Amino acid sequence: MTHVRTDGTAHMVDISAKTVTDRTARAQAILQTTEQVTALLAEGGLPKGDALAVARVAGIMATKKTSELIPLCHPLPVTKVSVDFELETGEPGQVRILVEVKTSGKTGVEMEALTGAAGAGLTLYDMIKAVDKHAVLTDIKVLAKSGGKSGDWEV
Amino acid sequence: MTHVRTDGTAHMVDISAKTVTDRTARAQAILQTTEQVTALLAEGGLPKGDALAVARVAGIMATKKTSELIPLCHPLPVTKVSVDFELETGEPGQVRILVEVKTSGKTGVEMEALTGAAGAGLTLYDMIKAVDKHAVLTDIKVLAKSGGKSGDWEV
Amino acid sequence: MTHVRTDGTAHMVDISAKTVTDRTARAQAILQTTEQVTALLAEGGLPKGDALAVARVAGIMATKKTSELIPLCHPLPVTKVSVDFELETGEPGQVRILVEVKTSGKTGVEMEALTGAAGAGLTLYDMIKAVDKHAVLTDIKVLAKSGGKSGDWEV
Amino acid sequence: MTHVRTDGTAHMVDISAKTVTDRTARAQAILQTTEQVTALLAEGGLPKGDALAVARVAGIMATKKTSELIPLCHPLPVTKVSVDFELETGEPGQVRILVEVKTSGKTGVEMEALTGAAGAGLTLYDMIKAVDKHAVLTDIKVLAKSGGKSGDWEV
Amino acid sequence: MTHVRTDGTAHMVDISAKTVTDRTARAQAILQTTEQVTALLAEGGLPKGDALAVARVAGIMATKKTSELIPLCHPLPVTKVSVDFELETGEPGQVRILVEVKTSGKTGVEMEALTGAAGAGLTLYDMIKAVDKHAVLTDIKVLAKSGGKSGDWEV
Amino acid sequence: MTHVRTDGTAHMVDISAKTVTDRTARAQAILQTTEQVTALLAEGGLPKGDALAVARVAGIMATKKTSELIPLCHPLPVTKVSVDFELETGEPGQVRILVEVKTSGKTGVEMEALTGAAGAGLTLYDMIKAVDKHAVLTDIKVLAKSGGKSGDWEV
Repeated sequence: MTHVRTDGTAHMVDISAKTVTDRTARAQAILQTTEQVTALLAEGGLPKGDALAVARVAGIMATKKTSELIPLCHPLPVTKVSVDFELETGEPGQVRILVEVKTSGKTGVEMEALTGAAGAGLTLYDMIKAVDKHAVLTDIKVLAKSGGKSGDWEV
Repeated sequence: MTHVRTDGTAHMVDISAKTVTDRTARAQAILQTTEQVTALLAEGGLPKGDALAVARVAGIMATKKTSELIPLCHPLPVTKVSVDFELETGEPGQVRILVEVKTSGKTGVEMEALTGAAGAGLTLYDMIKAVDKHAVLTDIKVLAKSGGKSGDWEV
Repeated sequence: MTHVRTDGTAHMVDISAKTVTDRTARAQAILQTTEQVTALLAEGGLPKGDALAVARVAGIMATKKTSELIPLCHPLPVTKVSVDFELETGEPGQVRILVEVKTSGKTGVEMEALTGAAGAGLTLYDMIKAVDKHAVLTDIKVLAKSGGKSGDWEV
Repeated sequence: MTHVRTDGTAHMVDISAKTVTDRTARAQAILQTTEQVTALLAEGGLPKGDALAVARVAGIMATKKTSELIPLCHPLPVTKVSVDFELETGEPGQVRILVEVKTSGKTGVEMEALTGAAGAGLTLYDMIKAVDKHAVLTDIKVLAKSGGKSGDWEV
Repeated sequence: MTHVRTDGTAHMVDISAKTVTDRTARAQAILQTTEQVTALLAEGGLPKGDALAVARVAGIMATKKTSELIPLCHPLPVTKVSVDFELETGEPGQVRILVEVKTSGKTGVEMEALTGAAGAGLTLYDMIKAVDKHAVLTDIKVLAKSGGKSGDWEV
Repeated sequence: MTHVRTDGTAHMVDISAKTVTDRTARAQAILQTTEQVTALLAEGGLPKGDALAVARVAGIMATKKTSELIPLCHPLPVTKVSVDFELETGEPGQVRILVEVKTSGKTGVEMEALTGAAGAGLTLYDMIKAVDKHAVLTDIKVLAKSGGKSGDWEV
């Protein structure tokens, strides 16, 4: 690993010599709430309003804030973002959030996809907390990555 | 619930008439990685540098960005933030992130504590992803809340 | 006007001695497009997706960015924001955007309401520009103001 | 229109496959105030200070915030921005704001030019509101566009 | 010093129990350039345009970004900001930047005043660097502070 | 100098026609405090916690905010940032901050390096101000620059 500093201090890794290529990442987050709440989400019946539409916008905007939130992330111009929701496809009371991000850049967009998923998930949390104080945002992870030298993969 | 709009559209709930009181929230996130990685974290041996120190700063700064990330959150001036890490106190390969936030305000700081925990967790993810592509950020939830009319609670 | 500087240079006016009171402002913006487009807006049929929901979120978030955009604005913690749309209530092809903002602060929230209306309007512009290159965002103004020493008014 | 999603939800359109070209956009906004106020603007005599210089800076900075304000806008690195003012060249009491923006990117800068015009206009509104409570920010529109596949145009 | 943590890790100090009082801070920065450049500054003759007006706006806006830039700073609502320049009152080729900031808050605004001075100074640096590559921004310090329990002082 | 406007007003200079090349800049800042404080810095003994780690992160993040702080700066995607500290290598009680920034872009990163140095320095100031009210942040300047048409140089 050539980018370790001898004194172990934090730094933004040098990517100057890397090639600009098209890169994609997909990530997910899961909000574990109750079936009563997923029903309210499906019908847009929550007190703060249409939660899925708000969380979708929040997730998209969060991907654009990634390098402001993650100190050592390189700023990257995202060229595509989508945020989708699946209700009640897993355990009862679950919302699955799926985010896909693309860029043309010198490094990958995994952190952008994860930040979008977390941002959408936190927003759902905020939208439902008047009716469920004990939701859990969980299983945030990268699902697939393509582009760049390290090779494509998918879980 | 008086703050439901008849057309179900999203809005920032009116808290003008609420009282300014001292409010505290505690939240957690868990990063599930490997024991090899938690050992590197403990000794500051990761390629991007001292991950815990960077994630602590990122978590604190993320709490201050809460109302920028969560569309319907009211801006609140945080008066105290701490971010702590526990390594290998749960399942093997786990890092537990604990965030405590205080404010004097008209509404609670649960979202600030959650956003701080997510921000610190995403930053750890970024710091370790060169050595663990398959970490999972999980179990993000509120642990305790005090202040405000709805009463104190703790899980 | 005591807050004029003798050399005419710009400064953020001193409001330290003013009283914290509840303050409200309402503002509007009008997007002039075509009847074909307002029909697409009403049915959510635009290429980039559900434009009204996105513009509502954008308008709410823009009010929270007011003091970042307007150099001499004092930062104010908004305590309520709503953004509403009226389609085809004025000239053919018009969308009227109505924003209401409240705070408890030392100065008024007219600029927050105007910034929210402009932010929602610009977002609608972006959502429809693939189908109407020649929309006009117009008639952005304050409709009503209450709270503070200068007295309440409404147009 | 290939970028419509079947469920009509909002998303940031995929521009990965588009070509990087030089792109320019010009936009305007008009502030309708009174002749007394445009005289004060011309001589720098407003209570908050030199309004045109402040609004020029605000307009330039607003173009750089476009993708933070407009949820589905792609981040673009602007390579040139100018903001100009014309006083009393239209109806009595009018200030015309003209913004020109350039980039080398995969999509156009119309939204950047419009956001710059709106940002400069809102700032003028703020600078004059102590002397004119009833100004109107109006006629915000794109004047010309060049670069990109859809062809150049000018109104 | 009660706010030291036993493990020495960074945290945002708890100010919840402190009293809201009026607080003021004054800070300075000095830009050391050449007499040729201060002459250009005085007459507004620099290639990027009227440098003092731009730097004044930048300084005011920087004070509002203090808690975003300084990780452990508490967010504070500034209630007054002024930025002034003195040309050639010290060593030849010097510009002195003076910033005054007020708030009503639980902690002082020294960091806001310093950040404003640095922001204005960096902006001047940017405005003149085409004509002076070797300017130095120097002597950034707090000049006076009032309000709060620790007492007033002035250098 | 072709980028002077005839009316002397501020504008963001047109760099559209410039070539994308690798560019590097190094800058410094010096914090003048006391030997007692540099000893506390070296051992991580300051009341707010480990100051050097926090200031390093703040400096890196500040470079990414350069175009938000400096009105006429072009946004540039940094590809490498490092922030280093030297204690007691100059006058007694001095901390020297060294920042290196790289980009692939159409203009240089001197302002990014300077902003990183100032951001790290202001953060150190904040971390030590409980034990030294009279620190001075000084000697902020560019040390070296490479890439671009104007040629490489080093002081």
